[in-house]
Amino acid sequence: MSLAPGTPWTRTLLGDPEVEALFGETAQGAWLKRVEIAFLEAQAALGVLEDAAASAAIASVEAAILDAEGLVQGTARDGVVVPELVRMLGAGEAAGHVHAGLTSQDVIDAVAVLTAREVDRVLAARLTGLLAQIDGLEARFGTRRIAGRTRMQVAGPIRVADRLRNWRGPLARAQGRLAAAGAELRIFGGGGADGTGLRVAQAEAVSAEMARRLGLDPGPPRHAQRDGWATYGTCLAGIAGAAGKIGLDLTLMAQPEIAEAVLSEGGRSSAMPHKVNPVAAETVVALARHAAMLSAGMGQALLHEQERSGSAWMLEWMAVPQLQIAAGAALRHVARALGDVQSLGAD
Amino acid sequence: MSLAPGTPWTRTLLGDPEVEALFGETAQGAWLKRVEIAFLEAQAALGVLEDAAASAAIASVEAAILDAEGLVQGTARDGVVVPELVRMLGAGEAAGHVHAGLTSQDVIDAVAVLTAREVDRVLAARLTGLLAQIDGLEARFGTRRIAGRTRMQVAGPIRVADRLRNWRGPLARAQGRLAAAGAELRIFGGGGADGTGLRVAQAEAVSAEMARRLGLDPGPPRHAQRDGWATYGTCLAGIAGAAGKIGLDLTLMAQPEIAEAVLSEGGRSSAMPHKVNPVAAETVVALARHAAMLSAGMGQALLHEQERSGSAWMLEWMAVPQLQIAAGAALRHVARALGDVQSLGAD
Amino acid sequence: MSLAPGTPWTRTLLGDPEVEALFGETAQGAWLKRVEIAFLEAQAALGVLEDAAASAAIASVEAAILDAEGLVQGTARDGVVVPELVRMLGAGEAAGHVHAGLTSQDVIDAVAVLTAREVDRVLAARLTGLLAQIDGLEARFGTRRIAGRTRMQVAGPIRVADRLRNWRGPLARAQGRLAAAGAELRIFGGGGADGTGLRVAQAEAVSAEMARRLGLDPGPPRHAQRDGWATYGTCLAGIAGAAGKIGLDLTLMAQPEIAEAVLSEGGRSSAMPHKVNPVAAETVVALARHAAMLSAGMGQALLHEQERSGSAWMLEWMAVPQLQIAAGAALRHVARALGDVQSLGAD
Amino acid sequence: MSLAPGTPWTRTLLGDPEVEALFGETAQGAWLKRVEIAFLEAQAALGVLEDAAASAAIASVEAAILDAEGLVQGTARDGVVVPELVRMLGAGEAAGHVHAGLTSQDVIDAVAVLTAREVDRVLAARLTGLLAQIDGLEARFGTRRIAGRTRMQVAGPIRVADRLRNWRGPLARAQGRLAAAGAELRIFGGGGADGTGLRVAQAEAVSAEMARRLGLDPGPPRHAQRDGWATYGTCLAGIAGAAGKIGLDLTLMAQPEIAEAVLSEGGRSSAMPHKVNPVAAETVVALARHAAMLSAGMGQALLHEQERSGSAWMLEWMAVPQLQIAAGAALRHVARALGDVQSLGAD
Repeated sequence: MSLAPGTPWTRTLLGDPEVEALFGETAQGAWLKRVEIAFLEAQAALGVLEDAAASAAIASVEAAILDAEGLVQGTARDGVVVPELVRMLGAGEAAGHVHAGLTSQDVIDAVAVLTAREVDRVLAARLTGLLAQIDGLEARFGTRRIAGRTRMQVAGPIRVADRLRNWRGPLARAQGRLAAAGAELRIFGGGGADGTGLRVAQAEAVSAEMARRLGLDPGPPRHAQRDGWATYGTCLAGIAGAAGKIGLDLTLMAQPEIAEAVLSEGGRSSAMPHKVNPVAAETVVALARHAAMLSAGMGQALLHEQERSGSAWMLEWMAVPQLQIAAGAALRHVARALGDVQSLGAD
Repeated sequence: MSLAPGTPWTRTLLGDPEVEALFGETAQGAWLKRVEIAFLEAQAALGVLEDAAASAAIASVEAAILDAEGLVQGTARDGVVVPELVRMLGAGEAAGHVHAGLTSQDVIDAVAVLTAREVDRVLAARLTGLLAQIDGLEARFGTRRIAGRTRMQVAGPIRVADRLRNWRGPLARAQGRLAAAGAELRIFGGGGADGTGLRVAQAEAVSAEMARRLGLDPGPPRHAQRDGWATYGTCLAGIAGAAGKIGLDLTLMAQPEIAEAVLSEGGRSSAMPHKVNPVAAETVVALARHAAMLSAGMGQALLHEQERSGSAWMLEWMAVPQLQIAAGAALRHVARALGDVQSLGAD
Repeated sequence: MSLAPGTPWTRTLLGDPEVEALFGETAQGAWLKRVEIAFLEAQAALGVLEDAAASAAIASVEAAILDAEGLVQGTARDGVVVPELVRMLGAGEAAGHVHAGLTSQDVIDAVAVLTAREVDRVLAARLTGLLAQIDGLEARFGTRRIAGRTRMQVAGPIRVADRLRNWRGPLARAQGRLAAAGAELRIFGGGGADGTGLRVAQAEAVSAEMARRLGLDPGPPRHAQRDGWATYGTCLAGIAGAAGKIGLDLTLMAQPEIAEAVLSEGGRSSAMPHKVNPVAAETVVALARHAAMLSAGMGQALLHEQERSGSAWMLEWMAVPQLQIAAGAALRHVARALGDVQSLGAD
Repeated sequence: MSLAPGTPWTRTLLGDPEVEALFGETAQGAWLKRVEIAFLEAQAALGVLEDAAASAAIASVEAAILDAEGLVQGTARDGVVVPELVRMLGAGEAAGHVHAGLTSQDVIDAVAVLTAREVDRVLAARLTGLLAQIDGLEARFGTRRIAGRTRMQVAGPIRVADRLRNWRGPLARAQGRLAAAGAELRIFGGGGADGTGLRVAQAEAVSAEMARRLGLDPGPPRHAQRDGWATYGTCLAGIAGAAGKIGLDLTLMAQPEIAEAVLSEGGRSSAMPHKVNPVAAETVVALARHAAMLSAGMGQALLHEQERSGSAWMLEWMAVPQLQIAAGAALRHVARALGDVQSLGAD
């Protein structure tokens, strides 16, 4: 399965296998179960649920085999995966306790945060790698000259290092923004369908314990407070944009008459076998522009009516994974483009 | 494989199996071959290529077995599927004629138009069905009363038929716009990488013959003239939006205190088993808002530099299939939502 | 007053004085009155309103002096200009007939269509002029050579005429699309707040007569059917995009190492007095990208709830004038950029 | 002059007089001069420029009378205001030192940051006021009951305070985000057209002193590093969105059959004098959706080619002021809507 936009052939070009793997049925299914279990464990730890009852329910969840196709059909019918999930998890007498006190959104939001943690780990590592690549280019070519260009005209000579500084800055700051945005994605369990926190005894303590067990941060229920996700989504578009500036510069530098960047390898042309196309750099530009569009959907999704909006929430479901994939793919391609650099500037 | 945005569980909810099937490896692979063959046939028909040479090349294409994974990897490397495709098609002595005179964009754009024709057939049929459904609702409930509402306040009583008229109009006009937009998607073969039309002898006649064989319309080379695709893309967003208005109205009419629409079936709630959520209607709203975002990418892609822009073209690759899927899904869900209607208005 | 986005200094750069003049208080105020009068005349012509009553009401409207600041304050209070307008128009005993049978949206939509007609006249004239400019460039430079460029790399030599063909096509088709989109903007008067057409006697005939007197096309009430406006708005973004492609190409051609376009005049630089910046071409690119964003708002506005949505309608109010201005400014700047061309290509 | 989008009548409805005043010719002209002076003072303070020369240049700037129309025309010609500004500031022998060492972007970016500081002060005060308003509503109505609603259906009773918590959270966090985003807008002077920092002696120290005198934060040159502005712009859209959620909820609560909110005053209807339209709440929704669109332009502007992009920078000029105005207007209208609340919920 691929979540990357495009045709079947573009799924690696425009997608990101490593990020998309986190959206696989295996990973997502395991996280669904993990969230349900963490809530049971948290209730048991706080004495809200008897140990024996919790253990039985946990065993039921652990033993359940998720039928992916059934979950897809359930989601198509119910608009969320959770009702069908609960049916699959709860076969047996433990059913009464599985998911009791949780709502669909508690579970789905928690899985989304777990996913984001892993995605962000991938993105953070790539950002670090990219900064090292730029350092490497600076060591090799930093003192060489290129034309400083403003408004597409030559402004005067600069060093390659000057251009690289403009590539590095936004990427470095994106690291900090990504960490901050990720930390704002909080979870809550047991707040009830209306987010009032009255659904289970000691909901706040249970919720904190549940978060701790999942390695996440607890927060007040945010079913209808989507600013954390919007900030996160625009941060991802910002990462793609920071990469996009590099890609755009590279395509301009690699123009043959300008030749301020020499790339070792690009895409083949079906009509002109000897032409080297700066495919990776172009792809970054396309991904960055696509991500900017998607980020506007996050702004629309802020208009989340009442205690839970089906439509605004689904808008997030469409935008967030694609933004994660686009940011991942942009970083992957810009690393490839920089890796293809044979030389920058001239002595 | 799914091209629908979201998580693995939402692929049917937010996707459109019928439209996505047209993006399957089988369908897309067959169209790639069909375009290459049509170009060879057209050259033979016009005497530009000797019959024997054309037949050998066609046989080579027909015999070729496409390795989907290889095409994906080739696309990741080359930025387009065609170089790897040509390698797969041309094993043997016929290689010299397969794809000779065509460029990547000739082929990919032609496949995109073939895809659009089939997608549009699906959408057109659904639009027709939807109009019939609305007629059916009018027959059943048209004379009943609901409150006419302006600015979210009651303006005075209207008939259900008055509301239905506002649903029908945009859908009916969308039929005409879709047909017109589809007819503007033209193909050309043999124009050369630079679109000058000098690549093969009698390029214009060959191109017209090729189009005829594919059941498409010929046009001057439009590698860098993307207004047809932008118009088509915004037309798709318009279809989703026309459906979205109905979805939004239904969610408002189905509010329990208002109860101007009674829906028979909606999504189950994991926490409140007896609640009926207007899932289909909400989904339409989400899809329409998502499609509006994606359509802005089509406007960006109009800035297609020089004879062919890798980045602007890839931006289309991301936006168009998703717009086709979103339009399809929106029509599918609105039909489902209207099918769930038990009653509208009151006597 | 300027409706152009930006700072006070950019109002001519990023705006369009000719288009914005159509949004001036004088022009808009006159159209408001003209619509009210046309409705009275139409009722009189059809015998729905007695001649004497109509004449008195028309005289009252004609004699009224609109206080612009009062209209602004009224709009801020009521959310539409019409209640305050009616108060200003109806001083005296004729008050009973002024606006009777009309709704705010009848009037505002009709004024918007009148405005669009005039804007479109400006845009159509500019498109025609632009095509003539391109013809002129072809006559002067068409046979000269430039590098055909695909994916930012040199693909092979082409003639300047080949590049110009890619500029001309989308502009020429935009002419047809603009005319078609404009013709879909219909008006109706007397349909009532709920658009049911029951507010005045013979509403349909009155409406047709009113439209005839305004030089517009009648249609069924479209208070809540906004597809015509969305199509029109995206058409405007398409015009800006067609211009944007030319602007983008010119900035690339004017790069000093490439020098396929020599521009006579550009913007001065405060730091480098002798540098010639391709300001007009860059401005077109910015306007086209801005217009693409705004057009996404038109898609959101399709979700126009019930018989009239205050919020979706206001979203149009923000997007449409800016799209008209952006399209106008893009055409103005691209004409300037092409006028600055000293030479294209080389022998 | 108004920078608000719309027609002449909507300039107060859809604009924000307090924010727009900061974009007036007086305010902006004074800031242009202030930046030029601060740079001269900073050079003098650091001994880079002799006191006498600095004083003469400063006197020339202070004495200059800016001709707004001339600045507009200069901007239309040069693409930036600064060349014409410098001509106006430098009449006389001091001319050699006025602006010497600065570039257009140094000045315009610094003025944009000064503007943002003042805009943010307005927004921060409104956010504080809004939170106090919500506290006031909680004190009055917090313990009353409304229906908790998920997916547009009744989920169960909640207290008004529960709903208010979902309004408060995003606004409270927006305060922090706005402060953080504002602090990332740094200025630099003397970095040269290419941002290399080599244009004046001790550029970094001069820049820091200049910033200190302007009450701003210095940073490395960010002519081509636009992530700070993109983050700021999306933060503004987030503010509008946080307000938009409240506006959307209020329009739903004020539906007559639901009547969970009673508003004292809304817009008048021209056709139905007794109807109270929730105009302020609807306006907030429209502004929030518009702002989300504009924010996508900030993502596009991240693709800022080379040392300075004319087109990407102009895209910011269009988006940022409108986002500031939209955020301001959204906060203003939501305060008005909340002020109109007569009661929430029922005992």
